[in-house]
Formats: sequence, C-alpha cells, structure tokens
Amino acid sequence: MKISIDAMGGDNAPHEIVKGVYKALEAFQDLHIQLYGDEEKLSTLVTAHNRLQVIHTDEVIEGTDEPVRAVRKKKNSSMVKMAEAVKNGKVDACVSAGNTGALMAAGLFVVGRIDQVDRPALAPTLPTLDGKGFVMLDLGANSDAKPEHLAQFAVMGSVYAEKVRGITNPRVGLLNIGTEDKKGNELTKEAFILLKDMPINFVGNVESRDLLTGVADVVVTDGFTGNMVLKSIEGTASGIFTLLKEAFNTSMKTKISALLVKDELRGLKTKLDYSEYGGAGLFGLKAPVIKAHGSSNANAIFHAIRQARTMVEYDVCGIIQSTLRKELSND
Amino acid sequence: MKISIDAMGGDNAPHEIVKGVYKALEAFQDLHIQLYGDEEKLSTLVTAHNRLQVIHTDEVIEGTDEPVRAVRKKKNSSMVKMAEAVKNGKVDACVSAGNTGALMAAGLFVVGRIDQVDRPALAPTLPTLDGKGFVMLDLGANSDAKPEHLAQFAVMGSVYAEKVRGITNPRVGLLNIGTEDKKGNELTKEAFILLKDMPINFVGNVESRDLLTGVADVVVTDGFTGNMVLKSIEGTASGIFTLLKEAFNTSMKTKISALLVKDELRGLKTKLDYSEYGGAGLFGLKAPVIKAHGSSNANAIFHAIRQARTMVEYDVCGIIQSTLRKELSND
Repeated sequence: MKISIDAMGGDNAPHEIVKGVYKALEAFQDLHIQLYGDEEKLSTLVTAHNRLQVIHTDEVIEGTDEPVRAVRKKKNSSMVKMAEAVKNGKVDACVSAGNTGALMAAGLFVVGRIDQVDRPALAPTLPTLDGKGFVMLDLGANSDAKPEHLAQFAVMGSVYAEKVRGITNPRVGLLNIGTEDKKGNELTKEAFILLKDMPINFVGNVESRDLLTGVADVVVTDGFTGNMVLKSIEGTASGIFTLLKEAFNTSMKTKISALLVKDELRGLKTKLDYSEYGGAGLFGLKAPVIKAHGSSNANAIFHAIRQARTMVEYDVCGIIQSTLRKELSND
Repeated sequence: MKISIDAMGGDNAPHEIVKGVYKALEAFQDLHIQLYGDEEKLSTLVTAHNRLQVIHTDEVIEGTDEPVRAVRKKKNSSMVKMAEAVKNGKVDACVSAGNTGALMAAGLFVVGRIDQVDRPALAPTLPTLDGKGFVMLDLGANSDAKPEHLAQFAVMGSVYAEKVRGITNPRVGLLNIGTEDKKGNELTKEAFILLKDMPINFVGNVESRDLLTGVADVVVTDGFTGNMVLKSIEGTASGIFTLLKEAFNTSMKTKISALLVKDELRGLKTKLDYSEYGGAGLFGLKAPVIKAHGSSNANAIFHAIRQARTMVEYDVCGIIQSTLRKELSND
C-alpha cells in the first residue's frame, strides 16, 4: 500500500505533517509513503525510514492562490506532484491539508474522474450529538448541481459509509426543506425520484435542523446548500461559545461556575469538532484523494492517512465505479 | 389605523391572542381592531371595548391543512376573513399566528401582490449576538428564485429595515458561499450584478457563518437556502443546549456550577430566541401581512401588531411599490 503526501499544505506544514506520517508508518506496517516537499525544510524533520521516500519539490500552492490557475501554473508544487504520483500509478492514494479548491482541481485534472461520475464531490464526516457522525456531500466542490449528480453523490456516500465507516445498510437522506416526499425546489424534487431507484437505503428527505441528531448516515445535497449549512452550523456553534464565555465571565460567581464545569465543557467542544472525524474525501475520482483540515495537527494527518488507506483497502473507488456502471446499464 | 387579527391561529389561540390584542389597544390609542374567530370561544375572553369589534367565523385553518387548498375551501375561516378585511379596505393590515403556508396563500390570493413584485417573500428578523438582529428574506415563501426576485427582496428588506427597524442606510448583503464578488452559483452570481444597481446600500456577498455576528442588516437569499440556513441555526443551537444540559447534569460539581450561572444562561437563551424579535413580515403584498410565531404568547402578538402598525404608519408597502416602479422605469 503506497500513499503520497503533500508535506507543504496546511497551517502546520511541514512539521505536523511529518509527525503524522511517522505515526502512520508506525501503525501500519504495510504502508509506504512518498512525501512531497522542500527537501531543505524537511531535512531537519525527517530521519531515514525504509518505507519513507522524500521527493523534492520547489513550489508551493498557497491558501490564497486561485485554485485552477495554481494547479496549471505550479507544475512542480508538492500538491501537483503528489497527485501525479497517483495518476502514474506510483501510489494508491494521496493526502493534502493544503488549498481545498486547488486539491479539488488537482484531483479532477491530474488524478482524473471516474467515467460514471459527472462531478466529484467533497465529503467530510460531520459530528452528531451521539458522537457517531455522518457523511455529507457535496460540501462545495460544485456550486450548481443537477438531479443526476445528487443521485451519484448518494451512491458514493453510501459505499463510503459502508466500507470505510463500517455502517451496515447506511441510511441515505436528501437534504430538503421538509420531510414530506413532494417538498423541495426543482432540484430536490427531481432528485428525490432518482434517489428512490438507486441501490441504496434511501430514507427520504431530511431537514437541516435534524442533522446534529443523526437523522441519516449519509446526507446528500448540492455544493451551494452544503456549504451554506456547514457554515451555518459552524457560525452558530462559534457564536454560542462566545456568548457562553461572556456568561461565565460575568461575575465571581459565574467564574467559579466555569471552573466547576470546565472539563465537561471541553468535552462538549470536542464532540462538535469535525476535525476529529478525519479529513474530507474527494469522491468520484479514480483513486482516493483526502483533504485533511487546514489546521490539521499530527493526529489529524494520521487519521487522514488511515482514511485513505481504508479507502484503498476496501476498493471504495472501484465499488463506486461498478455500482454506478451497473445502474447506468439498467437505465 | 385599523388592523384585523386571526383569533384562532397558533398554539395558544385564542386566549393569548386576545390578551395581546388588549395590550395593543391599551398601548396605541389610535388603534382599532377587528378580531376574527369563533364568537362562542371568544365570549369568555372578550369584554366590551369601543375600539374592538369581534367578527364571527365558523371555520379554522389548522396547522396540518394543505395551505392553498385550505385557503380555497375554508372561505369562512378566521384567516381568510381577516385577509378579506384587508382586501376590502376595511382595515390597513392583518396579523395571524396560524399556518404559515396558508397565510402566504391568503396574502397572495386574497390581499394580493404589488404589481412590481413577482414573488412575495417571508421576512423574519433573526437574532445577532449583539442583540440588534437582522432581516432575512426569503425564508421559504418560494423554493425557487430568479436573480430579479432576489433584487426585489433586497429593496423590500431595505425599505423595511429603514422604516420599521429605524436603521439609517441599512447594509444589504447577498447570502453566498464566499465573500468575493464573483463567488456563488448561477443564481447568486447573476443576482450580485443586479443588486449592485439597486437603490440600496449593497455591501456584497456575506457568508452564513457570519450571520449571528451581524454582518448585514438585511440578508437576501432564495427561500430554499433561507429555510436551510434558518433550520441549521435552530438545530445547532438546540443541539448545543442539549449537550450543555448533559454537561451540567454530569455530577454534583457540575450541578452546583449550573446553579451559579443559571440566570446568565437564561439570558443567553433569550438572546437567541427569534420570537423576541416580533413576527415575520410577508413582503410584496398590497398591505402589511404579519405572521406571528406559532407559539406566540400575548407579548409576541402585541409585538406583531405593533410591527403591522409601524408598517402602515410609514407606508412601507407604498414605498416598496414606488421604489420598484422607479427602478423598473429606469431599465
């Protein structure tokens, strides 16, 4: 099993990336890693390892770079080179904590799309109150979607939830403005009809207010809505934590209260931290491409590598392809 | 000033509605109210008042009724009769805490649309952390929108924020997946261009994660996205409060902590309760139609009546109409 890693992407690159890589090499004895990045910067961090190969790249795609242009122009960047290793069959999967848009472009233009998928989708696992989490896609790879795209997302998410997250017969829901079958806008009304015929456990429409309570294992939506909902959840959580901090800072009495419940509050925040659930998969490509959170530490990188590894192990991309091929031939 | 009220709509009808009506009659000496509902049920609650007229209706539109059908079939319902009073010029505005969809249908089919508005929009005022709040529209009156609808929403929201909420030169933002000018899906990209030319203080794209921090006074979006975002905020807030309750219930220590910060936490919850900000206006109609929250108590009904009164006082519907007429003649 071989995985390529972008050593230069994310807020804590390269040191936390390298630490995460060593953690993964230790945990998985079958794992070989190709680490792409600036040799000089990596030299102080990397020690010889028989399953680690460092490959020098002299360009970096920055978080502020315009994604498509960056992937086209910076041909010797750690991210593009890492993706080329997948394309050329040197490795089975790749992981980056860098520019999300650029990674999507590299996935699409370098790694390449599965024929049966019109649009790749970005699919993170988001937290639920019970700690189980759910897969949501698309979270912004495309801002406009057609009903058939949502149907493809549903199959991809379902295969992933079953194979990688170990959920038997995962419940797939369509994000909508009401739970009744005929609710929605033009897109979701048409998608509903298609989803009913997909080889998945389709549980119907689900509402955004029920996401945190785990109403489905896989939630399907277009990238625009997905982005809106994710950022609404983030903004609300962050806003409430700000108000909580103020509440606890009101008086001596509330400050004492804060001390008494400190550990439990920290636990609560961890529960809602979706970086705890690993990276976001970019589904619909010929091989696993994992986007680790931009602020990933060594532990998050380790989890993203493990995620890529499990996707390879269970041939998630192959199963997505064969499932959709069968579906298309039935039409 | 005359306002008609649906006495039978909402979870706490008719008693809290009647209480709210008396509160409003007391506060506003120029206010005359027509109260539509079941005379028998109202008889024990209503005492004679020279500015209050009770009009008997023998049908009620229930929360579970299919909106359009209910408005068409239940012609003698309190809601339809209340709307007819507006149409016939007997009153200047109306308020109901009943079935939202039915009220929108009654607004559209009975009260009627302003010629310059293609689609009415549901526009509640939502909370911000600083307690000022912002107007968001459309929150679900239509699930599909065209760019020109969003431009009309922007003008309606801006006029309302200025006249009723007293905000000078209100900042109008377009809800989008990024703040850069060219971000978005087809709808928002085209709407952005139209909004730049509207007679409003357009501040560009705003993201859903920044809504609670008051990034704009008026936030414009299509009804599908608006519904998604509103329910995401509600669901997240409710989920975090559930987790907080659990955290405070963990041990004797945390239970003591809860007692010490009880008042501040209640204050926090109140801050995020959008029913505190009054009812939702249905904009784009020939007269003010206010949807009070379904769980409205007397106080919420009082605020909704005040809101309707202010809309009449400042001729919000007239200004919306003249602004859009001018805009159309400029094209």
